Amino acid sequence: MSDSSEPNEHRVGKVYLVGSGPGDPELMTVKARRLVEEADVVLHDKLPGPEILGLVPEERREDVGKRAGGEWTPQEYTNRRLVELAEEGKMVVRLKGGDPFVFGRGGEEMEHLAENGIPFEVVPGITSPIGGPGVAGIPVTHRDHTSSVSFVTGHEDPTKEESAVDWQALADTGGTIVVLMGVGKLPQYTQALLDAGKSPETPVALVERATWPDMRVATGTLETIVDVRDSEDIEPPAITVIGEVAATRERVVTFLANRTGEYEEEGSE
Amino acid sequence: MSDSSEPNEHRVGKVYLVGSGPGDPELMTVKARRLVEEADVVLHDKLPGPEILGLVPEERREDVGKRAGGEWTPQEYTNRRLVELAEEGKMVVRLKGGDPFVFGRGGEEMEHLAENGIPFEVVPGITSPIGGPGVAGIPVTHRDHTSSVSFVTGHEDPTKEESAVDWQALADTGGTIVVLMGVGKLPQYTQALLDAGKSPETPVALVERATWPDMRVATGTLETIVDVRDSEDIEPPAITVIGEVAATRERVVTFLANRTGEYEEEGSE
Repeated sequence: MSDSSEPNEHRVGKVYLVGSGPGDPELMTVKARRLVEEADVVLHDKLPGPEILGLVPEERREDVGKRAGGEWTPQEYTNRRLVELAEEGKMVVRLKGGDPFVFGRGGEEMEHLAENGIPFEVVPGITSPIGGPGVAGIPVTHRDHTSSVSFVTGHEDPTKEESAVDWQALADTGGTIVVLMGVGKLPQYTQALLDAGKSPETPVALVERATWPDMRVATGTLETIVDVRDSEDIEPPAITVIGEVAATRERVVTFLANRTGEYEEEGSE
Repeated sequence: MSDSSEPNEHRVGKVYLVGSGPGDPELMTVKARRLVEEADVVLHDKLPGPEILGLVPEERREDVGKRAGGEWTPQEYTNRRLVELAEEGKMVVRLKGGDPFVFGRGGEEMEHLAENGIPFEVVPGITSPIGGPGVAGIPVTHRDHTSSVSFVTGHEDPTKEESAVDWQALADTGGTIVVLMGVGKLPQYTQALLDAGKSPETPVALVERATWPDMRVATGTLETIVDVRDSEDIEPPAITVIGEVAATRERVVTFLANRTGEYEEEGSE
């Protein structure tokens, strides 16, 4: 913790860019748990999820996910606030869902800190596109099926001319494709992958609220998954897994004892 | 823990497929730490690293990484041993480096358990191809540079006809490419990527023994990295990061306070 008892000594604080993991508090790292307890201030948005945010007393939390008026806080505000607090000598935890460097804008925050001379540490977290499918019985790699795995964000519209995601190239890798934040654009990128030559029979799984107590999983194929999404009413946040590995779940789920509701253990909650 | 005090009751145990993270014991999840303490037996190989293995008393550890004769234990032995111990009613932790489902053969072990009717849980871990670069100041994704990231294993020889890795497709994605276990084959796949049209100026970083106390990082370009590897004597285990993000490190490293030796903090070890 910062030492505020010495007068007349300006001592800059430190910022920890911390991944909180996919949502289950037990899937936080030992270091993340320690830092959240020790921090003067925890800057967060909604992504760490209710259980993890509940671990931090309200007086030490700052929500930078939304402004009072319901608008999203611009990244510039978060960047500025991190520097401001560190310059006050505070020990600051910037708590981010999953891993800070997997589509989390942690890279930008890190660069901003360095530009402003603020010491920082990076604390990786379990990224939900690996951990989420994992607890659902879906290995993102498997020696029998795939020799690579690619992660993309589904926020982009793949029908747009300027889409930065090359679905043809991703299809051509032959590896597993995992899409983050890809519930809304599911029809567009499943079509893009079919157009790129992926088989309509390619297994697909949707993992909603991965590792949260109300986690849900729905499975189908590239051809059926949009209907499955609609009939099961799958909503964000969710992870989409595309590839042979997505079919693993049905072969193992009877004995899968993670808290996903399927396996009823004697004496379990 | 299993209850061995009730006679004449056959109660099957449970297997936890647990990722230990990249090596720093504080980067284990809270759940992994708890399970390692509670387990009757911890089955492991060398990948979790010396610090993490040191947390488990020797009488509760079984090394399935090597046989007495120095040969590697076949996967079949590990699979069989997991079932055997669970059938004895034991609480078994199968401790794997990184995440169990990222090139870790956890998928095969999971399927074997399900086929044999053994209840199991999956406990994700920080995967070293994300966490390793992360603590070195390298974000595997970055809004300014990349909209996807792909993970492959470098164990394969990309010059072989039957190589399952399509380096052309990986290059075409335009995203970050992260190669696990890719020190030895570095000349082959850097050449494959150059042949696929990647710029020789593409930044590349090697992260050796990610998050271990003696972690090292070396940087170069697709054209220079083989020489860098040789002059710096980079050895396995190491992660290779290929893409613009690999250049981030030099912009931030002065203020990076992770235990990589660069940033000297007052009072730190």
